[in-house]
Amino acid sequence: MSSSGGPTSPYTALAISRPAQFITHVELHRPDKLNAMNKAFWSEMVECFDEISGDPDCRVVVVSGAGRVFTAGLDLMDMAGDILQPEGDDAARVSWNLRKTITKYQETFSVIERCPKPVVVAVHGACIGGGVDLITACDIRLCTQDAWFQVKEVDIGLAADVGTLQRLPKVIGSRSLVNELALTARKMYADEAKSSGLVSRVFADKEAMMAVALEMAGEIAGRSPVAVQGTKVNLIYSRDHSVAEGLNYMATWNMSMLQTQDVMKSAQATMEKKSLKVVEFSKL
Amino acid sequence: MSSSGGPTSPYTALAISRPAQFITHVELHRPDKLNAMNKAFWSEMVECFDEISGDPDCRVVVVSGAGRVFTAGLDLMDMAGDILQPEGDDAARVSWNLRKTITKYQETFSVIERCPKPVVVAVHGACIGGGVDLITACDIRLCTQDAWFQVKEVDIGLAADVGTLQRLPKVIGSRSLVNELALTARKMYADEAKSSGLVSRVFADKEAMMAVALEMAGEIAGRSPVAVQGTKVNLIYSRDHSVAEGLNYMATWNMSMLQTQDVMKSAQATMEKKSLKVVEFSKL
Amino acid sequence: MSSSGGPTSPYTALAISRPAQFITHVELHRPDKLNAMNKAFWSEMVECFDEISGDPDCRVVVVSGAGRVFTAGLDLMDMAGDILQPEGDDAARVSWNLRKTITKYQETFSVIERCPKPVVVAVHGACIGGGVDLITACDIRLCTQDAWFQVKEVDIGLAADVGTLQRLPKVIGSRSLVNELALTARKMYADEAKSSGLVSRVFADKEAMMAVALEMAGEIAGRSPVAVQGTKVNLIYSRDHSVAEGLNYMATWNMSMLQTQDVMKSAQATMEKKSLKVVEFSKL
Amino acid sequence: MSSSGGPTSPYTALAISRPAQFITHVELHRPDKLNAMNKAFWSEMVECFDEISGDPDCRVVVVSGAGRVFTAGLDLMDMAGDILQPEGDDAARVSWNLRKTITKYQETFSVIERCPKPVVVAVHGACIGGGVDLITACDIRLCTQDAWFQVKEVDIGLAADVGTLQRLPKVIGSRSLVNELALTARKMYADEAKSSGLVSRVFADKEAMMAVALEMAGEIAGRSPVAVQGTKVNLIYSRDHSVAEGLNYMATWNMSMLQTQDVMKSAQATMEKKSLKVVEFSKL
Amino acid sequence: MSSSGGPTSPYTALAISRPAQFITHVELHRPDKLNAMNKAFWSEMVECFDEISGDPDCRVVVVSGAGRVFTAGLDLMDMAGDILQPEGDDAARVSWNLRKTITKYQETFSVIERCPKPVVVAVHGACIGGGVDLITACDIRLCTQDAWFQVKEVDIGLAADVGTLQRLPKVIGSRSLVNELALTARKMYADEAKSSGLVSRVFADKEAMMAVALEMAGEIAGRSPVAVQGTKVNLIYSRDHSVAEGLNYMATWNMSMLQTQDVMKSAQATMEKKSLKVVEFSKL
Amino acid sequence: MSSSGGPTSPYTALAISRPAQFITHVELHRPDKLNAMNKAFWSEMVECFDEISGDPDCRVVVVSGAGRVFTAGLDLMDMAGDILQPEGDDAARVSWNLRKTITKYQETFSVIERCPKPVVVAVHGACIGGGVDLITACDIRLCTQDAWFQVKEVDIGLAADVGTLQRLPKVIGSRSLVNELALTARKMYADEAKSSGLVSRVFADKEAMMAVALEMAGEIAGRSPVAVQGTKVNLIYSRDHSVAEGLNYMATWNMSMLQTQDVMKSAQATMEKKSLKVVEFSKL
Repeated sequence: MSSSGGPTSPYTALAISRPAQFITHVELHRPDKLNAMNKAFWSEMVECFDEISGDPDCRVVVVSGAGRVFTAGLDLMDMAGDILQPEGDDAARVSWNLRKTITKYQETFSVIERCPKPVVVAVHGACIGGGVDLITACDIRLCTQDAWFQVKEVDIGLAADVGTLQRLPKVIGSRSLVNELALTARKMYADEAKSSGLVSRVFADKEAMMAVALEMAGEIAGRSPVAVQGTKVNLIYSRDHSVAEGLNYMATWNMSMLQTQDVMKSAQATMEKKSLKVVEFSKL
Repeated sequence: MSSSGGPTSPYTALAISRPAQFITHVELHRPDKLNAMNKAFWSEMVECFDEISGDPDCRVVVVSGAGRVFTAGLDLMDMAGDILQPEGDDAARVSWNLRKTITKYQETFSVIERCPKPVVVAVHGACIGGGVDLITACDIRLCTQDAWFQVKEVDIGLAADVGTLQRLPKVIGSRSLVNELALTARKMYADEAKSSGLVSRVFADKEAMMAVALEMAGEIAGRSPVAVQGTKVNLIYSRDHSVAEGLNYMATWNMSMLQTQDVMKSAQATMEKKSLKVVEFSKL
Repeated sequence: MSSSGGPTSPYTALAISRPAQFITHVELHRPDKLNAMNKAFWSEMVECFDEISGDPDCRVVVVSGAGRVFTAGLDLMDMAGDILQPEGDDAARVSWNLRKTITKYQETFSVIERCPKPVVVAVHGACIGGGVDLITACDIRLCTQDAWFQVKEVDIGLAADVGTLQRLPKVIGSRSLVNELALTARKMYADEAKSSGLVSRVFADKEAMMAVALEMAGEIAGRSPVAVQGTKVNLIYSRDHSVAEGLNYMATWNMSMLQTQDVMKSAQATMEKKSLKVVEFSKL
Repeated sequence: MSSSGGPTSPYTALAISRPAQFITHVELHRPDKLNAMNKAFWSEMVECFDEISGDPDCRVVVVSGAGRVFTAGLDLMDMAGDILQPEGDDAARVSWNLRKTITKYQETFSVIERCPKPVVVAVHGACIGGGVDLITACDIRLCTQDAWFQVKEVDIGLAADVGTLQRLPKVIGSRSLVNELALTARKMYADEAKSSGLVSRVFADKEAMMAVALEMAGEIAGRSPVAVQGTKVNLIYSRDHSVAEGLNYMATWNMSMLQTQDVMKSAQATMEKKSLKVVEFSKL
Repeated sequence: MSSSGGPTSPYTALAISRPAQFITHVELHRPDKLNAMNKAFWSEMVECFDEISGDPDCRVVVVSGAGRVFTAGLDLMDMAGDILQPEGDDAARVSWNLRKTITKYQETFSVIERCPKPVVVAVHGACIGGGVDLITACDIRLCTQDAWFQVKEVDIGLAADVGTLQRLPKVIGSRSLVNELALTARKMYADEAKSSGLVSRVFADKEAMMAVALEMAGEIAGRSPVAVQGTKVNLIYSRDHSVAEGLNYMATWNMSMLQTQDVMKSAQATMEKKSLKVVEFSKL
Repeated sequence: MSSSGGPTSPYTALAISRPAQFITHVELHRPDKLNAMNKAFWSEMVECFDEISGDPDCRVVVVSGAGRVFTAGLDLMDMAGDILQPEGDDAARVSWNLRKTITKYQETFSVIERCPKPVVVAVHGACIGGGVDLITACDIRLCTQDAWFQVKEVDIGLAADVGTLQRLPKVIGSRSLVNELALTARKMYADEAKSSGLVSRVFADKEAMMAVALEMAGEIAGRSPVAVQGTKVNLIYSRDHSVAEGLNYMATWNMSMLQTQDVMKSAQATMEKKSLKVVEFSKL
């Protein structure tokens, strides 16, 4: 499982593969540009995850970066026009257009969250700027010992506006650390990423990480998609609501989802001490 | 303080005792069934905590499990009817009934949260499935070195629906870890439970844990019940509201609660370097 | 950089200085009273931070305590009248007046949060009661190895009502720990403050801490104030809203803020590998 | 359909009857006391509506008052103890107990709202104080030409606390009118009740009103209970949420509720121009 | 301005025209089917309003129906498959698919609300079922004297799920009326539509109505698009938020939008008593 | 009671008087400028209402306009600098300053809402632009037959940003009408103001209106201030929260407020059929 070839048509910045049944691997794939996020990237991510959302043969996604690093973040050269020379006859109209642009870019990562299939992200080397926006929208974060993370935006004169300021504080437990990272743009290394809870595991190298990422994805893919995807949907709903609201929604969700044959199939396999991976679940 | 006898009448799955003044001990007590949660358990918890809520002689609660483990979770055998063979003439009516059932089961743990007296839970051995739902509704979590936790629901084909998905993310700081636990059903051991903040202390064995649980309960029971219970109520309110909303509610709460004699009594004892435990507070 | 002199007129409990360009140092300055929070303190903080908010020559704030400890918390002697002998002809009118008082005191720390300039707080020695309310309203928390923290309010018979119960749970990741601290009033030392995420760094002594606090403040002050202050405003907005609401607000905020010359200036310096500190940003 | 007899055992303040299939009639029945709300009333309402909620043979409820008026509101004599002489050793403890009492009384009307079956209320003569709290928790309001409404609470020195201040503004469209009624305690007569939207229809006398109330109840009872009760549940959910939240909940609700045979049965009857009343729907 | 021809390519259920500068007229155009909403309609509305949203030459939209009535609502024959025979191997999977379908259909009307250009809807004759969902998502509602409205869904065994239950209560002031309409499916005629506030004006016939609709659209189109569209965006935001939240958003919105040349242009025209229609505003 | 003299020192745009015990009359008083809102007005309102809020001798406020009309709205000439020539070195900084300005102006009307004493506003003649922002923040609205209302902002190229778009939709029941008024800037006359619920009463002329305004104020002033002000506070809280949230807050509010002597005093007077105006309530 690696980025043997180049990007997968029709994509130019992403390589998509299926390393095992029910698992889709999305690789940021502009290694010579350190996977910097160019215009193509921002729209291809939306297309790609929209397709994944509707694909019954995909039950879990792994995201990683090809080449030396995960991503260098925004490709300033390619994007400069949108940000530095926005159109509009007066400041209000420039604002109007910028708002549309920002909203469109936010979509690039929100689409990951809206996808009901769990997304495991595996980070090696640098994860800068937009990279942090991306990984905080994923569900499970892993990294290598040489990984580092940087909320870079203040360094180029702007407040991060495609997700980091909204999601990072809900993803790790220390608000003092979040603020320090976002206000000083200092680098955070793997150990602190682990102790702060940004990632749940650290690996010696990329190979070891990818092996576990795939294994973990296999564990998830082997379970009932009704259970797994309902879990993701409700975990995200809970983040944004009170416990009472979350419980109400959960009950309303499960009143139908409990009527799946997967409960019986899963329960039986579990009692018979069989692996869930041998159970055949209907498409979802 | 231990499960010398069996369950306390009228309960069949719980043993209730008063190990010290103002402290109620609630013990899951079906040791031969690994304290699996049967039908009786789900309703007895509500009765039990409703009574505790109204009992002025109880100021703090300790919850633990009798026998080898804290709890094996749902007693599938006993509960199967409710979940696997729900009634109803069509899918809509089955859903309607399932929603009532889920809502009723959610109540079993929400009642712990609605009880204004702090609840300390002490976990040893296994804490599986419904056990995680239970402990995340408690206020302070302790465990032994041999304890392990498992969000088991995806293994039986369903999304956890009685509290774990709503409360676990608000109880520990690493969202990546929460997602990993809920999506893969892997076990989490005591060390990770401590470093992630699920529990605030780990003990060598159950005896040591129970000793500290009681001591901690004693500390709480010795303080002004107006202060302690107002603290719990407002901590839970804060979790589900913005800081501004929380402050508004707090001011409205304390405008009357500051008019307690307990302030003068407590302040005096503190100035005189006396233990608060010797102060006599009126019933609440 | 230290509290050479006494309080800075017109303040009597605070010493204000400018240790470096764009940095304001606010020192709790009643060292002989362990910086206990007296009546003057509660109103001076509001005045002081209102002025800081409007001062274009201040881009970042450092808060610390003069003398042996950070703060002993509420100055009970000085404040007793307000709390213990509130006015009013009946319990309702006493409540009405207490509510006004509590709301006014809450303002003392909320003003820190409303100030768009980042606030770094450096704690040494004791940080008790109101001290915890104060530091949880700051953005970045540092402490010395000898620092300890205590949510003291239950010891004097009341539920903390000026911010701790609202902000502490959103500042650190372990809810069990938050509850334990607030319900038992036990002390928490530097190591646990670090591992729980309350502070993001611990230092050997106050001198070392203040050096880094100033350095960190310098890093922040050197960056675009449009970027930095927009980051603070949106981080706080995000805490109190869903991710979707936060993203909407962020886009609406940045549609104008991206139209700053600071983006071009910052981007250019970054590409030229120059320090941002040499860039001249317009006043904000 | 009228209050021929007295209260229906086990109730002492309510008379319950079944004037037609699937319709339950709940009559406030202390005519000699102008249906003033005594202690029994407050708890019997909860019992009564809990039973109605679970009764598959009831699909709609009609509420009215026996005797000369709908209700004179609170029975001050009977209730005085609870409100005027609350227990508690200090003001804080009195507050604690009062809060429990108020919360319990609020439940008396919230139970109407939580009941998924639509509730039509028919008002004649006076509807004072608690009567307004009651009717604003119902779904459809009718009145006679001689009816009048009075938010009476300020006249006895208190802010209405069992629902009027929360529900009245969401029930009628003129906020100026709501405020005038609640702040001056002036009477509002049938015409203004109609033009302001408090009631949707006015009738010459009680007999005419009850005839239409029953007819309207019959219309509702004749339709699919899955459709009708889902409509009520979602209308109330919508009131308290944004449109986007309401739509999300609605989709999650209907994903199972559309799987009812009632859709086919209803659609067929409608196409065949048959009355829905002849369709037999399964129990719900 | 009328439905001279048939639908406008590429649409099959809609006719689009430009009756005057900056005004787009969207006509439901299946007159021989009473403009019943078939599959094509549901997706064409989204396409159509997406295009309108991005078209700088459109500043206001008028929606009406071709032929004898506004719309008969859902085209049950064409839609039956989606609703009555949803796919899925078990009830959970059917639910999953139904939820996607409902969400997609909700989008058809939400797109009207997301479009920043005001939408005036002119109703004549029948407006049934889905028609009510449609018009409640529009901004200004007009109707003819012969118009009638019917929340039809309970008649076919389902709770309305594409907007009526969410928007109708926020669109008219009498909750009793809303409930009556939704629970009994009775028809509401023009007079009640006017007195209840559903429509703001009633006209003798369609011709008179369309003339005023166009005139009103002209008034809107003649004003600053920055002002007009900002007004719509913020009115909708306000509906779903508290006043304080709405004010905060408004200030953040207008901090850039006030920097438009339109303010100066408009103010000058107003002072010179010129019509705003002669002012040339830049594209938005 | 009339504007005999000029403004009341220290105010220059307001005349303050006390027409009867406990009643404060605030008169917009720049009659030669049609009470246009100049810079002084915007800050004097805040001062004035802050003082009223703290004045125990004021229990209710009446607001009206001196001279020919209520108010012509914004005094464009006096305010132009703030709005048309905002300071700032780039568009971002101009935005930053404008946001501060807007927020300050919003405060001018929010202060009316935060004042716990009810505010009755009496409108004659024109009520334009800022006038609508003002009256929607008041509690009870009255007008003369010759009054007219105009949401004027779109006419000068901006979206209303000091309250109208946030409060008007929560003040009247017809959303179609709100949108029409805000998007077309058409005038609304007294009859429509009454039928839509904007005002609760219409009077033949100003004299008649002021007489009733004072009488109504007298009714309010004669009642328990604990009851009246608690009613206002909770009515406003309810507007911005769900019913459940509102009930919770109400119970927490009244747990102390019911402990007033006013309940006994009021109840006794009511039973003895005495006017509440003769009851002496303690200061609040």
